[in-house]
Amino acid sequence: MEKTGFSFLFEKLKNQSPKKLVVANGVDMHTLEAVRRAVDEKIVSVIITGAKETVINNCSKAGIAENLYEIENCDTEDAAVLRAVEIARAGKADLIMKGLVSTDVFMKAVLNKEKGLLPKGALLSDVAMLNNNVYHKPLFISDVAILPLPNLEQKMQMTKYLIEVAQKAGVERPKVAFLAATEKVIAKMPACADAAELKKMWKEAAFGNSICDGPMALDLAVDKHAADVKNFSSPVAGDADCLLFPNIESGNIFYKANTIFCNASAAAIVMGTNVPAVLSSRGDSSDTKFYSIALAALIG
Amino acid sequence: MEKTGFSFLFEKLKNQSPKKLVVANGVDMHTLEAVRRAVDEKIVSVIITGAKETVINNCSKAGIAENLYEIENCDTEDAAVLRAVEIARAGKADLIMKGLVSTDVFMKAVLNKEKGLLPKGALLSDVAMLNNNVYHKPLFISDVAILPLPNLEQKMQMTKYLIEVAQKAGVERPKVAFLAATEKVIAKMPACADAAELKKMWKEAAFGNSICDGPMALDLAVDKHAADVKNFSSPVAGDADCLLFPNIESGNIFYKANTIFCNASAAAIVMGTNVPAVLSSRGDSSDTKFYSIALAALIG
Repeated sequence: MEKTGFSFLFEKLKNQSPKKLVVANGVDMHTLEAVRRAVDEKIVSVIITGAKETVINNCSKAGIAENLYEIENCDTEDAAVLRAVEIARAGKADLIMKGLVSTDVFMKAVLNKEKGLLPKGALLSDVAMLNNNVYHKPLFISDVAILPLPNLEQKMQMTKYLIEVAQKAGVERPKVAFLAATEKVIAKMPACADAAELKKMWKEAAFGNSICDGPMALDLAVDKHAADVKNFSSPVAGDADCLLFPNIESGNIFYKANTIFCNASAAAIVMGTNVPAVLSSRGDSSDTKFYSIALAALIG
Repeated sequence: MEKTGFSFLFEKLKNQSPKKLVVANGVDMHTLEAVRRAVDEKIVSVIITGAKETVINNCSKAGIAENLYEIENCDTEDAAVLRAVEIARAGKADLIMKGLVSTDVFMKAVLNKEKGLLPKGALLSDVAMLNNNVYHKPLFISDVAILPLPNLEQKMQMTKYLIEVAQKAGVERPKVAFLAATEKVIAKMPACADAAELKKMWKEAAFGNSICDGPMALDLAVDKHAADVKNFSSPVAGDADCLLFPNIESGNIFYKANTIFCNASAAAIVMGTNVPAVLSSRGDSSDTKFYSIALAALIG
């Protein structure tokens, strides 16, 4: 198993018994191969919804032994998604993963007000974990795919998610950087004002055991030398564990710059739902899917 | 001389005679060492404004021979900046560089309505050139430091700057990606709608000899494999020369992710002024300062 960069995640997972994963329409090889790795590593035990025969055939192809998963037979894709959500909602699974189903259909079921997985008033957002082998530790980042332009209240909740995930992954007192294009509070850049507000909230103990600072540009958050040259003094400078992005474009672009140009290992999970959700897409590598299950198993 | 990644820029520069560079208060070693490299490579000849004795002493320390530069003696920092701007405005220099002076003071002089360098109605923006040794060619990107949230009209002008710089650097028909978080035109993400509008303008021949497309996420622009997996078909897919960012945070973060995590070589110049300007900061590497002079010499 490739553990590079995610070793501390797997160390934590060793200390817990397997979590229950439900896979919605888990009939495609992309999904099942990642599931097989997670089962092999005793990270999860599995319930798979979908057409029984296809599930059995493809689990066999993927190398998942018959005694290692349960099947909930569903005739259609829609039924398989609804059943998986129902299982998670009933507390019979600790994490949920999208199989062969469009993100739209999956999210519609997850967000359904009566039968879905999002508690009233909860904020749906994502947290990704990145290890690029250049930075000296993993980075937890948000949001890269869900919230286009979070407002201050949403950023507050995103910060809580970041800290929760980092802590569960073994970072006792996460250092959080509220990113902007500069460390100055410039009126025409709302990202700066929000970051300053978030820092104030941290000082008022809104974020528990953490060290938060901002606004700051990326170099100040992850490059000690740059921070020194610019006389930017902060315990977070050059040593951030968590990066909060002011908009979806900056988060999405940072995530992809890391995975494409820096060969970064990555995991991503959806937060805010009753149980964490893995929404891997065909574009994700097999490693990313596997790591995402592992991260969700740690949080769920 | 380190040419890695910037070799095609230097090939182009070989075919032109040295440009005239004016350095505003060029009294610090950071600036003068970059200037010395540009002089050695016959990219520029130099006028330096500043306190005469300090200029002479530090040029000597930096290794610039006395016959290779002119001095405009100025008693104060402010006077040195005003004099440099005056020289550029009078057409006696092809490019201008900030020396030991705060960006605010320098820009104030550049933007002065009567005596500055920005023609009426011109848009001030920046273009950076990046080479990260992973992507198969240099990337020209905008805007990483000046415009917080450009509107459609500003994005149109930024696209023109990108194409102008790429063409002058040797890319005959630049491929431009209008970046967003997704390739879909989603109403709650204005970056997507603007990108679609810009593509329409390109189809109506607004951008000369180029191929423009968008909206698209970063992976589609620079990773052919990702584009194939996602069935995203475009001549720009996986082969972009130019990236237009929807906001300053995404541009700034992309630039810094490349220089910090990917060991990218970088150059950055300010566009829109009568002559291109180099605003290197103490945080920039010596290479970046030198490459920025080279890029400005090609454009000016």
